[in-house]
Order: sequence, then structure tokens, then C-alpha cells
Amino acid sequence: MYSFTNDYSEGAHPKIIEALLKTNYEQCEGYGLDKYCLEATNILKKLVDNNDIDVHYLVGGTQTNAVFISSSLKQYQAVIAVDSGHINVHETGAIEATGHKVLTRPHLNGKLTVNMIKSIIDEHIDEHMVQPKMVYISQTTEYGSVYTLNELKDIYHFCKANNLYLFVDGARLGSALALENTPTLKDLVNYSDAFYIGGTKMGALFGECLVIINDQLKTDFRYNIKQRGAMLAKGRLLGVQFKELFSNNLYIEIGKHENLMADILRAGLKDFDMYVDSPSNQVFPILPKKLIEKLKQDYSFIVMDQIDDNHNCIRLVTSWATQRKEVEEFIKEINQFIND
Amino acid sequence: MYSFTNDYSEGAHPKIIEALLKTNYEQCEGYGLDKYCLEATNILKKLVDNNDIDVHYLVGGTQTNAVFISSSLKQYQAVIAVDSGHINVHETGAIEATGHKVLTRPHLNGKLTVNMIKSIIDEHIDEHMVQPKMVYISQTTEYGSVYTLNELKDIYHFCKANNLYLFVDGARLGSALALENTPTLKDLVNYSDAFYIGGTKMGALFGECLVIINDQLKTDFRYNIKQRGAMLAKGRLLGVQFKELFSNNLYIEIGKHENLMADILRAGLKDFDMYVDSPSNQVFPILPKKLIEKLKQDYSFIVMDQIDDNHNCIRLVTSWATQRKEVEEFIKEINQFIND
Amino acid sequence: MYSFTNDYSEGAHPKIIEALLKTNYEQCEGYGLDKYCLEATNILKKLVDNNDIDVHYLVGGTQTNAVFISSSLKQYQAVIAVDSGHINVHETGAIEATGHKVLTRPHLNGKLTVNMIKSIIDEHIDEHMVQPKMVYISQTTEYGSVYTLNELKDIYHFCKANNLYLFVDGARLGSALALENTPTLKDLVNYSDAFYIGGTKMGALFGECLVIINDQLKTDFRYNIKQRGAMLAKGRLLGVQFKELFSNNLYIEIGKHENLMADILRAGLKDFDMYVDSPSNQVFPILPKKLIEKLKQDYSFIVMDQIDDNHNCIRLVTSWATQRKEVEEFIKEINQFIND
Amino acid sequence: MYSFTNDYSEGAHPKIIEALLKTNYEQCEGYGLDKYCLEATNILKKLVDNNDIDVHYLVGGTQTNAVFISSSLKQYQAVIAVDSGHINVHETGAIEATGHKVLTRPHLNGKLTVNMIKSIIDEHIDEHMVQPKMVYISQTTEYGSVYTLNELKDIYHFCKANNLYLFVDGARLGSALALENTPTLKDLVNYSDAFYIGGTKMGALFGECLVIINDQLKTDFRYNIKQRGAMLAKGRLLGVQFKELFSNNLYIEIGKHENLMADILRAGLKDFDMYVDSPSNQVFPILPKKLIEKLKQDYSFIVMDQIDDNHNCIRLVTSWATQRKEVEEFIKEINQFIND
Repeated sequence: MYSFTNDYSEGAHPKIIEALLKTNYEQCEGYGLDKYCLEATNILKKLVDNNDIDVHYLVGGTQTNAVFISSSLKQYQAVIAVDSGHINVHETGAIEATGHKVLTRPHLNGKLTVNMIKSIIDEHIDEHMVQPKMVYISQTTEYGSVYTLNELKDIYHFCKANNLYLFVDGARLGSALALENTPTLKDLVNYSDAFYIGGTKMGALFGECLVIINDQLKTDFRYNIKQRGAMLAKGRLLGVQFKELFSNNLYIEIGKHENLMADILRAGLKDFDMYVDSPSNQVFPILPKKLIEKLKQDYSFIVMDQIDDNHNCIRLVTSWATQRKEVEEFIKEINQFIND
Repeated sequence: MYSFTNDYSEGAHPKIIEALLKTNYEQCEGYGLDKYCLEATNILKKLVDNNDIDVHYLVGGTQTNAVFISSSLKQYQAVIAVDSGHINVHETGAIEATGHKVLTRPHLNGKLTVNMIKSIIDEHIDEHMVQPKMVYISQTTEYGSVYTLNELKDIYHFCKANNLYLFVDGARLGSALALENTPTLKDLVNYSDAFYIGGTKMGALFGECLVIINDQLKTDFRYNIKQRGAMLAKGRLLGVQFKELFSNNLYIEIGKHENLMADILRAGLKDFDMYVDSPSNQVFPILPKKLIEKLKQDYSFIVMDQIDDNHNCIRLVTSWATQRKEVEEFIKEINQFIND
Repeated sequence: MYSFTNDYSEGAHPKIIEALLKTNYEQCEGYGLDKYCLEATNILKKLVDNNDIDVHYLVGGTQTNAVFISSSLKQYQAVIAVDSGHINVHETGAIEATGHKVLTRPHLNGKLTVNMIKSIIDEHIDEHMVQPKMVYISQTTEYGSVYTLNELKDIYHFCKANNLYLFVDGARLGSALALENTPTLKDLVNYSDAFYIGGTKMGALFGECLVIINDQLKTDFRYNIKQRGAMLAKGRLLGVQFKELFSNNLYIEIGKHENLMADILRAGLKDFDMYVDSPSNQVFPILPKKLIEKLKQDYSFIVMDQIDDNHNCIRLVTSWATQRKEVEEFIKEINQFIND
Repeated sequence: MYSFTNDYSEGAHPKIIEALLKTNYEQCEGYGLDKYCLEATNILKKLVDNNDIDVHYLVGGTQTNAVFISSSLKQYQAVIAVDSGHINVHETGAIEATGHKVLTRPHLNGKLTVNMIKSIIDEHIDEHMVQPKMVYISQTTEYGSVYTLNELKDIYHFCKANNLYLFVDGARLGSALALENTPTLKDLVNYSDAFYIGGTKMGALFGECLVIINDQLKTDFRYNIKQRGAMLAKGRLLGVQFKELFSNNLYIEIGKHENLMADILRAGLKDFDMYVDSPSNQVFPILPKKLIEKLKQDYSFIVMDQIDDNHNCIRLVTSWATQRKEVEEFIKEINQFIND
């Protein structure tokens, strides 16, 4: 049984493991004030050529979203997202648990558009309704699609013109960065108020690197991390991992591997429709139920929505550890089915 | 510079690192549903000879306290603790952030007593005040003292007679378990509604193992973990670590090492008063300021309260990694000072 | 300028004012424990022929919704409503501020259907998503439509079969009760877990009477009222008003007057389309913009959505104090416009 | 049975009732945007000779405290109060329910001192603890004592020097204002960031008038009112009442009557010790239990703490409606007891 269920089925990339091993006996400051966190941050600042960003290391994605969004909004303010946004569906109401409404529109190819944002702020006009204050997008999206630089700029400029913050959930940012002609880390610094660079789904044991660009959102941020139970005692673990990811292009290299494995899947599935067009490490083919049943004997993956009586959409995800041999084996089974 | 600042300055015990290495490439279920979590839980159930406990693995202590306390209380209910309790002082209001008041009394040697609890519930009589519903104690306490089995039983029986839950914060439980004649894991199962077995301060990279005994507090608990951002995607990491800690008596052995190192400190400091009597891995000597200044040149530790014009209390903490040689060196400096 | 803006533009029905005057100098217990609250409750219990209901008097509608919903749900549970539901749109995120997500579907003639509820619970299957636990409907709805007894029963039975609570927002319940063949107070006791009988929009100075039928939702409810700042010190004011409303059929009579005034409006507007069919005290005609401009010179009302380039929907609301003469004058202006 | 239990046992002062009657049929804007709220605010602005204050009318005291404090603090910030402060004891954790810790010190004659505040901020030094940001005092205090102008100034200046807000709970402000040489309304505008002028306990049916002086705390405040369920639909009721209270010195006159009635009680009780020295409308005599039993036959009042085996402290409160005849009758019973 080989798993394409998600990109957190395995442990960490060997270089990360090696770095953790090497530093295990050193005594470090706790709570993210250690030298490794500092070094990782300094490398990142150079990568994006900006010394003014604030960088914090948290453990998981839902946590990062909840801590950052709740700390940025006044209690009557709301965050805008697509209906398929991770914060809207798959975080057990973590944002609402901090007191904030998530305002949604149906996604378009997984994405949010300026028009959607506009229609929401046009509807919210006085103190009897929540006040939209932040826009949340994911890069890559929950359906694997990717915002272009122009799309990012358009949303960002609209946000600035309308006094909204733009926050980018980068749980799978590496897969987007590894593609050609997509927004770079530097672009994200220039065209968002904050974003996070996901580690958990990109080869780390765990960890998300939150980058805050907007000065208004920086104040006392560590209080928020601590209050939400998100401050790791051995913060060094995050510093060591991200230092490694930020060095020698490792973060992008992992993204490239993921995308390459997904490309092979896409090529092998070219005879089938895709639910959403995705160039990244998630693939959503629409397959005959019979084929799905067959594949399930040897592979694990998530079955999404039923498309019609005979077809379902499934989700295949590749990770830093996905093996080419297994991907090719999988495609072989697909081809056999087609040829039968 | 050698650090006695805390018990999370180093990485993890080598056996834990080894186990993480060995399992790194395996594909596992996410979110704590993997085989390692299951195996760790099964070992624990055997250790305490009880199959009905619910076991959950979380990342950190503040997080575990906030998730468990908030999920156990109705919104108008409060938790009782000593003023020095971790939830009252050092969690940035994490409990209040979930909506609950912490009701306190000044600690007695770091501990809470039945009389304190009684005086609080006697004061809270109607719906104009919060309703006390849970008692929170720490084993070992924040001052290193340890509840005896009789003290634990007394508090538990009082709680049951008064419809209160008893929750034990075991961030440093291993140090208590490693002492003679202290409550065992099985005692904790018998005389509390829930407790957690701390990993972060006991040799793990991170992780706390929450044990829920009271059936009323078990329902849908994973929803609470997820909503508070406390569900680790690669939950296997927790399973692997706690499986190791629960095997071959490792958890107790780490506690014994910590206590032994602290015993050497205590012996070397016998000429000085202690702020609180502690038999565990935290030591609180009251030292001349001159001595403190001298020690600071080679050692890091926390300076607590000023005692008088010439004396301060300091805190020394030992960990799984504390080296005997360093402890002896430290005592040598103490002796030199005494003899000068 | 005469106002059809809402049903809370004037003070209170003269019988209520009279009762407040008469009792002004009496000394009463505070916080809703006075004899008038008790008497009002006893009258209500007789009206619905049920002694087991719990009755609480609160000040306003948003407050009642927030106190009741938050006290009924565990933190990870959510409430289902139509998108136009008062709690979803017009309460500034009051429900989310207590930590709970509102799950919505587009309304059908202002109403929620069993199919909508079903589609929501079918989607929410595990602990990565909130857990739907309560259904919220309004009688009359925000668009003036009214649930039939069969619709109420269907929703209630579906809720019971699916372990959901049914809560009915009765801000304008009197207008529904005053219609023929609509669910009675007794029906609401039989086919909901809780509902409230609105006073503010039904002729009281203020006040909402919350009726809790489900025993599970009754425990310690006064703690919730107090904690949310919803317990009126001079609770007698609520008791006196609701005693009056529940006596001599006054509550229904006020509803009849409101509906009658609205019927005259409806008759006078029969040449125009209605946005939603409403038999109650809110009317939503689609009018030419020119007519709207003309009416605005003498009347105030809310202009809702634009329908097309030449038409808008407006909302007209009648109250206990609406005067027939003014309604007829308004219709006269309409007729003039038609005839011009 | 005559009641000295509290100052909200009766309805409203006749002038308030009269004003409500007179305006009952007028159509007004809802939600506090009516002309009466505007007029009341304009009168108040003249009284304090300041046009820049923001004035909001809310329904009750716990509500006002919770809405204002929660809207002023970031989530990790805390409010400082004496242990006997209303927000700490008698609001069922309403402040904590909005996520904020209340930091306390034992009261001194009912009051908070600069030293207490200082000791709290000295203890809270980093992000592992909450951040003190607001000081809460009550005028009069919960024990009837009154801050002098110098005390108010000292606290205010300390707050400004330490970046803290000062908020004054004026539930019984009228009783303080009616005394000689106490801070005036204008003083409160000059030496606090916000305060409220209590109506409920000062002769209104209900209602508290919140005055915000600090510009930082004014933004979007109506959103907070609405979200917390504190925005009265018929806001006119608050405007009409406070317009009356602010006219013809009525608010102060009510305070004077309350104090005069309390002075007669104090004079009649001069042979007994007082628990706390109070010059205002609350009196806390320490009486023999036998006397208390006797008084209970004809009077209702609250029995506070036991002082010794033979004595209890009781609380006597006078209101706008307290009758001299009844007070004198009460004192007669006291004298009889003394003479027996």
C-alpha cells in the first residue's frame, strides 16, 4: 500500500534530520530566542532583501492562521476567503473560536477574485454587520491552483485601496515557488501584509514560518503566540529546520521534486478530466469508480466529491519523499485499466 | 557558560532521536491516528492497568492546559489554582482567552490545599459569580514540591464530594514519579479526572500526553484539539517519542537522572536556605548577591525574588542532559566562595 | 414624515405603559426574581399548558440569540441558518464572538428547509470541521414569511433524528401567531427545543421572553444571562410588560393590528411584484425608482436591493402604533402615481 | 417589610416616568441615533465643557464594563482592579468571557492605590505573562467609599506615565457627585480615559451613559455595542431618561437624597462599628446577630461577612425612592434594641 493521501505522511527531509542530530546536545535559549531561529531569519531577510520583516516560527498551519488572524483583527472585524479556504472548512472553526466571522464566496478554480472581495465589502456597510478587514488566500490553493503575480498584485492593490489586510497561507508555498513565473518570496513581501512559509507539508518535521510585513501587525506579536499555546519551548527545533530549508535552495528543491512527481501523475492521467487545473503537488483527476476501486487495492488517497453515477474526483498528493518508482507503478495501473 | 536555566535547553534523549531516525521514511496516518500513537497508548494502558482511559498527544504544556480546561468547562465555570500555578502566571492568560476565570489562593510550599479549595467554593454561591468547577494542581509544582499520595487523595475526594474535576499538570511528572513514595501513574488514574505526562521537560523534543479518565470529559475531544490548533499533522512524531518514553522505564530513568543531579546541587548548597523545599529537579536556594554575581560569569540561571538587601533566590533546573561534571564544577565554585 | 422603517420606532403599547406606571413605586426583588416575572411565567405556562418549560426574560434579540446559542453549544459546535438569518447578517458577528460558526444555505422565500440542513450535516463528517448541532429559524422570517405547522414539524423531527437542537427566533412571533393556521405557542413548545417571544418589536418598551423546553439546555441558565451582561437589575420591568402582553390576548391583538395594517398596504400595492411573499407585518414591494423617490418625501422606509435599472425593492413595516389613516394616505400616494 | 437591599428595588424617578410617557407615541430613529440621545449628549457636553467626548448609552453595568473593557484591550492585555471590584466578583466572569484576565490586589477601604498598580506592573514583564493595560476603579466603590480628587489624579497620572488606560465604573456615580469636595463630572473627563454615569442605581428604569475621552478608544465603538447585544432597539428610552437626569440637576439631586437618607442611617448607627467608612448611599454597620435577627422581621437587607461569633456586617442601601419615614422607623428599632 503506497500513500498519495497527503504530503505529511513521512517524517522529514534527510538534511533536516541531519541538522537536528548535529545540534541535539547544544544548550539553547528557549521559546524561539535561540541562535538558530535568528540565523534562519537572517538568511530569509537576505533572500527577500528586506530587513524590516518580522519573522516568527510556529508549529502548525491551523495554529498559525488562528494566531495571526485573531491578533490582527479587532473583535468586530471579519476575514474574507473562498468557501473552500482552509480556514473556512478544515480548521474546526478555529477562526470563529477566536471570535471572528469568515465571510465567503464560492471559489473560482480554487481562487478568490477582486470582484468577490468587492461584493462582500459592498454588502457590509454599518455597525449592524461585521466589518471586513482581512483577505485570506492560499498559495497554492486548497485545489492546487496558483495565483499569478498579476492576480496577487490586483488583490493586494485592491486591499490597500480598501483598507484591508492581505494574508497568504503558504502551507504549500514551496510547490508554488518551484514553478516558473509565479510570485517569488520577494513578491510576497512586496504584495502582502503577511504570509507564512509552510514547513509541515514541505519536508520539515513540523513548523510554519510567519512573515509579517505590515508594521501595524507586528506589535507584541509574541504575546499572541504564547497566549494561543503556540510558542514551542524548544524553539530551536524550528530554527534548525528552517535554517536548513532556507539554505542551499532546499525549500525550492523540495517543491520541484513534489511538482515533478505530480507532473508524472498528470501526464499519466492526461486522458481524464481534472476537477480543477493544478500545476502543483496536488492533482484532482475525475476517474471512473471502477478504476478508483482498483487503485484502492494498492494505494491510499482521498476520494472527493461524486461527479456523476460513474465518476468520482480523487485527490493525489506528492511529497518530498514521493518515489518516482511508485508514481510510475501507479501510472502503469492506470494504463492497464485504460487498455483493458 | 553552562545553563541551569531550565529543562528544555537541549534537544531530545538519544533513544528518542534514534527512534525518530528509524521511522523517518515510513508512511503513516496523520493527526495522531498512526500506529505509533496507538502503540504508545497501549503501553501506557498496560502500565496503569486500565483500558478505559482516553489518551491524546499534544505539542506543548500551555496548549494542553488551554485545550483541556476550556473543553471541560461550561462558559461560566472557573478553575481553581494556587497563585503560582502555571496557568495563572506564565501562560499569558491562555485560560482567560478561552473565556474562563482562574480563581486563586496564595500557595503553601507551592501547593494547593483542601482548605483553599473550600474557601473558594464557599464564596461562590450564586449566578452573579463564576461557578468553580475544576481544580488544577501541578506535579511537581512550579516550586519543585511534590504532592504526596495522601494529599492527592484528599484533594480528589474533596473534589468528588463537591462536584469538581481534578486536573493534574504533569509538565515535570517524571521527576515526581522518580521519587520514592510519591503517587504513581496508576494513582493518578485513580485519583484525578485527567492529567498529562509531560514530554517537553522530560527529554522529548516536544509533546505532552493527556490522559482523560472521567468519561464526561472524553466526548469529541479531538474536535477541541483541532480547533485550538493543537493537532499535529505528523502526529507520528508524538507517538514515536512517547512509545520510547513509556518503554524500558525510560521516562522514570530520565526523572531519576534529573533528581540525582539536583540532589548533588542540594547537597552542595546545604549551607544556604531554600525558598521552597523541593525534592525534585528544581532547586531554589537563597544566595548572597555577591555569590550570584560570581556564578553568573560561568552559569546561566533565573534570578527569582529579592529576599533582602543582600540575598536573592535563584532557580536551578536539571534536565535529562545535565552533566555530573558540570554540576560538580558548579558546587566547587560555591565552596570556593564559602571558603573565601 | 411618517415612518414605516421598522416596528420599534414608537414607545410601548398604552396598556404596558399603564402597568409600568401602576407598579413604579413597589419594591421588588432584582434580576428577574420578582413577582411580576413569576406571574408572567405562570400565565404563559397556562397558555401553553406546560409546567416544565423554563422561562427567562432578556432585554433584546441579538442578546437573546447570543446568550442562548452560546450556552447551548460546545465550543466546536455550529449553528445552521439561512444566509438571510438575523444571526448571520445583522448581529455584527455576535454568535462568532462567542466562538461559534454559523453554517448557511441561501434562503428559500426567507426560509430554511430540511434539505438544506441535510446537505450541511452531510458535509460535516469529522473533527477537522465544526460539528453542526443547532438549527436556527425565525418566525416570522427576516422576509416576513411564515413557517407552517407542517414545515415546523418536519424541521423539528429531522433535528431530533439527527441530534440537533431547534431554536426559533420569535422577534416578530406575534405577527405570525395572529395569522390563521400558523403554529401556536403550544406548537412551538411541542416542536422546538427553545424559542423566544419577542417583545421589542411587538409593542413592549423592550424585552424578549425565552422559553426553554429541552431539559438539557436549562441547567444554570441564569449564569449565562449574567455573564453576557443580559440580566436586567430591575427585572420587574420585563415581568410587568410580559404579564401585560400575555393577559387578555394583548400579544395576539398587537399582531393582528400589525398584520391588518400590512394587509392594507398589500392591497394597495397589488399592482406591484413582491420580492418575497409575506403575510405578516413586513412587506417587500418592488417599486419604480421614481415612485420611491416620491414616497421618500413624506415617508421613511428602508430601500433594499436594486432589482433592475428602474426598480428597487423596499421594506415597509407596521407596528402596534401604526395608524390606519397614515397607511391609507400612503396608499393614496401610490394610487396617484399609478394614475399619473 | 421595607427593603434596604439595594438601589434598584423600585422603578424610576417620577420625572423620568413623566418624560417617557410624554414621548411614547413619537416615532424615533432606532439604536441610539434618535434626537433624545443627541440632546442628552449635548447637555452632558455642556456640563463638562467638552465637545470631544464620545457618549454612548447602554442598558446595564456588567454589560457596559464588558463591552468597554473588551473593546479597549488587545487579546493578551489585562485589567487591574481591587479584589472587591465589581468586575472581579459580581459579573460571573464577564470580562474573562471576553478573553481578558483581571489582575487584583486586596482593596484598601474599598479602593485601589497607585502602589497596588505599580506592584502589578512590576511583576508583568514579558510575553509569558499577560500585559496590564487598563486600571478599573469604581466611584463610589463597592464598599461605598469615594476617591478624592487627589487620589483620582494620582492614579490617572500614574496610568499615563505607564501607558495604562483608566476606566471609572460610575454605577453609583451620582452618590459620589452629590458629596462635597469629590471629583466632578468635569474632573472625570480630565482625569480618566473613560467612565460611565450610572442610571440603573440612580433613579432610571435602566441605562448607563458611557463617556469615552481617549480618542484611541473611540473608533467604531458602536460595532462593539451591537456585537455584544448591548444596542437597544428603542434607544430613545435611554436618551429620554438621561436627558431628564442631566437636566435641572436631577442626577445630583437624586444622589443628595440617597446620601441624606444614608446619613440618617449612619447617625442612628453611630454606636456601632462600620466595616468600611462610607459617606455615600451604602452603609456597612457591624451589628450583633440578635439585632440583625430582629431587624430581619421588618426589613430586608444583605448580610455580609461574619465578623465574630456574635457579630455580622450588613449592607444597607438607600435609593431615589427611600422614604425618610421608613429610615426613621428603622433607627427607632435600633434604638429600642440598644435601650433594651
